[in-house]
Amino acid sequence: VNLLLIEPCEVDAAGVVVLIDERARHLRSVLHVTPGQQLRAGLVDGPVGTAIVRASDDRAVTLECRFTELPPTATVDLLLAVPRPKVLRRLWPQLAALGVGRVLLTNAERVERNYFDTHFLRPDVYRRLLLDGLEQARDTRVPTVTVHRQFRRLVEDELDTETSADLRLVADPAHDASMLTAVPPHARRLLLAVGPEGGWNRFELDLLAAHGFAGISLGTRVLRSDTACVALLAVAHEALRVRAAG
Amino acid sequence: VNLLLIEPCEVDAAGVVVLIDERARHLRSVLHVTPGQQLRAGLVDGPVGTAIVRASDDRAVTLECRFTELPPTATVDLLLAVPRPKVLRRLWPQLAALGVGRVLLTNAERVERNYFDTHFLRPDVYRRLLLDGLEQARDTRVPTVTVHRQFRRLVEDELDTETSADLRLVADPAHDASMLTAVPPHARRLLLAVGPEGGWNRFELDLLAAHGFAGISLGTRVLRSDTACVALLAVAHEALRVRAAG
Repeated sequence: VNLLLIEPCEVDAAGVVVLIDERARHLRSVLHVTPGQQLRAGLVDGPVGTAIVRASDDRAVTLECRFTELPPTATVDLLLAVPRPKVLRRLWPQLAALGVGRVLLTNAERVERNYFDTHFLRPDVYRRLLLDGLEQARDTRVPTVTVHRQFRRLVEDELDTETSADLRLVADPAHDASMLTAVPPHARRLLLAVGPEGGWNRFELDLLAAHGFAGISLGTRVLRSDTACVALLAVAHEALRVRAAG
Repeated sequence: VNLLLIEPCEVDAAGVVVLIDERARHLRSVLHVTPGQQLRAGLVDGPVGTAIVRASDDRAVTLECRFTELPPTATVDLLLAVPRPKVLRRLWPQLAALGVGRVLLTNAERVERNYFDTHFLRPDVYRRLLLDGLEQARDTRVPTVTVHRQFRRLVEDELDTETSADLRLVADPAHDASMLTAVPPHARRLLLAVGPEGGWNRFELDLLAAHGFAGISLGTRVLRSDTACVALLAVAHEALRVRAAG
């Protein structure tokens, strides 16, 4: 891990944390920590800083933490048609690692009913996968995840309160526009809609267009949904980063 | 599959192909093809076109093919430090799907010796994974793969003949520059160097710099190597696509 994540409830008033779980085993057996050693640590949904090892034995690792710096705020939210469970499992850590702010999972015509039954939609299961991604990317901000079984209600009624994005884009191979040209200089936060393997249907595309989503694509290649998600999110973040730098 | 890939040696002079392998089973059992049905097909490393089903029974599927259109030429080559076997396995189809032209796998200080022993470096194994990615992305061009155990010799002696790229970039978190600004308007083909999990060492970075590689990054987040590869390749392709469009 590139960052040791600690839950706020685990830290006492003096900044001391006693770990006895998997993290303690990892610190002992993989990193072979010794007293005095300093590690990069972060408070879940809070600031990052350092943890100094105070003691380490077979039962526990005791750390003294100082959290000083807030990680940057997210700039990209994702509206994603629920993918196959296997793809969803692979995506969770990558979405967190890439820094997505909100993940709005939705139904769509080409989403199979049983995709909603997977345990990878259970908060206790996906939270662990999201934390893995945050530890990898040295971030602490857990993406906010919501599941919306009614696509139309989500787009018509819920989207305005669910995200503060000032730019809405939908990935659709029928469009040739690149995200790099679609992101205007003033854009601060982007909501990106990514459809199911078979794409959004006509009704869904029209509804998104009517609610301010402009069409973009990565060209004509058909990508597997997890590859497409990572590719689109990377380009979105880069487009915003370049715009922000002027 | 979005494209049925056929090897040149499988097609007779009249364009007829008789499939009896896994592809035949897929056409019968998954796509339930019937005589007269038209499919998208492509000739490995050749043009794409259509295949019309002429006959289908328990033993074989007979197709009549017409290949008419060449897929676009690759614009991005990848110089990649050999990743962990598990990551390499995941990467193969994605590299092909993203349209990478050449994959130059190399040693580096932080590449573990035993990574070279994996069967995912055997051409018969990775070729099947590359074809999977091409079928997904509707491409026929199999990336050319070479393995270079000596990084220095590769960079100093072999690179000029191995790739025709007119722009060389190295992903390195120490640099803040984005690929979007690093790709000049005239760029036609890009060679992107991506290091091992722990990054390139000082010697490797200096050698790359001395041979024309400019440093870029996707910002400060530390990504898993497969996520980083997909993200970097997506941004590279988009940067070139936008430049080409003016």
